[in-house]
Amino acid sequence: MPRPRRTESTLLATIARSFGPGAVGKFPRARSASASYVALGIGDDSALFQPSPGCETILTCDWFLEGTHFLRDQQPADAVGWKCLARAVSDIAAMGGAPRCFLLSLALPEIATGTWLNEFLQGLRRAAERFGCVLAGGDTTKSDHILINITVVGEVKKGHELRRDGARAGDLLYVSGRLGEAERGLHLLRKRTGMADHNDSRLQKHLYPEPRLALGQWLSKNRIATAGMDLSDGLSSDLPRLCAASGVGARVDAAKLPIVTPRVALASAPGNGKRPRADDAWELALHGGDDYELLFTVPRKKALQVPVSFEGIRLMSIGEITSSRKILLVGKGGRSTVLKPGGWDPFR
Amino acid sequence: MPRPRRTESTLLATIARSFGPGAVGKFPRARSASASYVALGIGDDSALFQPSPGCETILTCDWFLEGTHFLRDQQPADAVGWKCLARAVSDIAAMGGAPRCFLLSLALPEIATGTWLNEFLQGLRRAAERFGCVLAGGDTTKSDHILINITVVGEVKKGHELRRDGARAGDLLYVSGRLGEAERGLHLLRKRTGMADHNDSRLQKHLYPEPRLALGQWLSKNRIATAGMDLSDGLSSDLPRLCAASGVGARVDAAKLPIVTPRVALASAPGNGKRPRADDAWELALHGGDDYELLFTVPRKKALQVPVSFEGIRLMSIGEITSSRKILLVGKGGRSTVLKPGGWDPFR
Repeated sequence: MPRPRRTESTLLATIARSFGPGAVGKFPRARSASASYVALGIGDDSALFQPSPGCETILTCDWFLEGTHFLRDQQPADAVGWKCLARAVSDIAAMGGAPRCFLLSLALPEIATGTWLNEFLQGLRRAAERFGCVLAGGDTTKSDHILINITVVGEVKKGHELRRDGARAGDLLYVSGRLGEAERGLHLLRKRTGMADHNDSRLQKHLYPEPRLALGQWLSKNRIATAGMDLSDGLSSDLPRLCAASGVGARVDAAKLPIVTPRVALASAPGNGKRPRADDAWELALHGGDDYELLFTVPRKKALQVPVSFEGIRLMSIGEITSSRKILLVGKGGRSTVLKPGGWDPFR
Repeated sequence: MPRPRRTESTLLATIARSFGPGAVGKFPRARSASASYVALGIGDDSALFQPSPGCETILTCDWFLEGTHFLRDQQPADAVGWKCLARAVSDIAAMGGAPRCFLLSLALPEIATGTWLNEFLQGLRRAAERFGCVLAGGDTTKSDHILINITVVGEVKKGHELRRDGARAGDLLYVSGRLGEAERGLHLLRKRTGMADHNDSRLQKHLYPEPRLALGQWLSKNRIATAGMDLSDGLSSDLPRLCAASGVGARVDAAKLPIVTPRVALASAPGNGKRPRADDAWELALHGGDDYELLFTVPRKKALQVPVSFEGIRLMSIGEITSSRKILLVGKGGRSTVLKPGGWDPFR
């Protein structure tokens, strides 16, 4: 029996079904706290979002393209679903906000409209439930490669947003978690052929990143941080952006970087029989992308309020903000060099 | 002298510059009424939108992909810029809302980052100013083809939105403007080779569609319409969506369709030496996409409130809503046939 031909309507129906009855048309039975923010979901010309009084609406969008951001034959479809939402939600975390709903723009080749789509939607739904972010609408079409664009809508109390432009000379510079772990996972993936193993612990941060929502909200609610952003392209590329926005510079202490352990770092570097080198781990921490950790600045007088770890995530002071506008890396023996952007840039 | 290499930052800077100083970081000098809705624009992790009290936020997003929605060698770059925003804004018009700001997701091949990008941004800026819709942020990356995704954020007074699900049996069915004009332009374009002439009047509706914002707002503000949507895929594809959402059917009177004049319609049909046929114009009106006119339903007792034309755009009663769930086309002599969806579907 011939498989029924896919049309845009059946594709939309598949997506809507995957997100439960509440995802079609109205959301009569709110399945999560966020569902009540969406007055009208999939099925009309647009979605209707009900903003909370006293809050500003946070808007962000992110590409996730086959070939550029993921490989279809290496990244499990459910990890693609998880990650495309997680990285967009990370921009909400970086503002200190709470995600409310998202729009999914999906362009697919015919071959990806069956099993691939179902697994993708499973990962996306898991992420949506974890982050409290409801599917409100989107757009679908056909294309030669899998193209994904996600818009996330969040909220933050007016005046409490964590911006990039508030860092001041003398502030301490912090990062959450470990840096370079996602890039290490990517290297490991590239060394192999075939589909990644979901359960390989070294791949978790590359495949299923966790936006630091609770940390961002805590920093903004308690006005701990003067500035903040998420690390998506790598510390060496992202730190200059925070500094430029604030009109300041920074000095990073290499010894304080929360690196992955050198032995593990090497295991993931392109196999060439070389002996373990600690440098690999520092390179990964400085230039590796996709970690989605938070980078934030705290006035010295508030430093005692920053715990050593927050909900199990280590918070590390890695340097300080300076007035010089330069981004310096201080190595062993106190020798400082200019830290040049070496992170992810699709045009590089 | 070698041309400096394009990076993601320089691409962002080009976009931000094109939208004036106000588009970078904060919007310190509001250039339009809508600018005041954007508290934080390009340059941070996310944009901040300040919703108006008593309003719901309207969210919509739209693909506009090279090869699927436009041809780079036929559609002028400034028309691509205009149209990608206009069609997304049309979804705001279809809700009876006012557009406030938009996010631009742009993926470009290196070759399109010079002249093409500048012309694209000119068209986009013209559209943004015309629709009162401010660039608030977005995402850029590299790709083999030009990929565009636009998210538009609008507002409508709570409870005043023009939904698809309110049509009732007995309501009159209306469309604005003329149907099939954009598709006729597309046919004309396909008959030729090379870049379209900006000034060819027969191509205007295909290249530079005008979302019916004022009409949508008038219908919603005065509660004239029970349901409404925009015609993007063609009447025969879109009308069933409105009817399905409302749980009704419709009877369309072919003689009342605001068709393009047959002679002009034929001039645009694929050249085959055939004599002028009025059928062409009806086919275009029934199945032609991209018109972005409004389709709406009005209770009979309010029909007198609907003017013959609204701000120069003709409003035509083309049939009525029925309880039967069927979509019927009534032809000459009163013979009715089932109207099958024959409009645009990327998977067809």
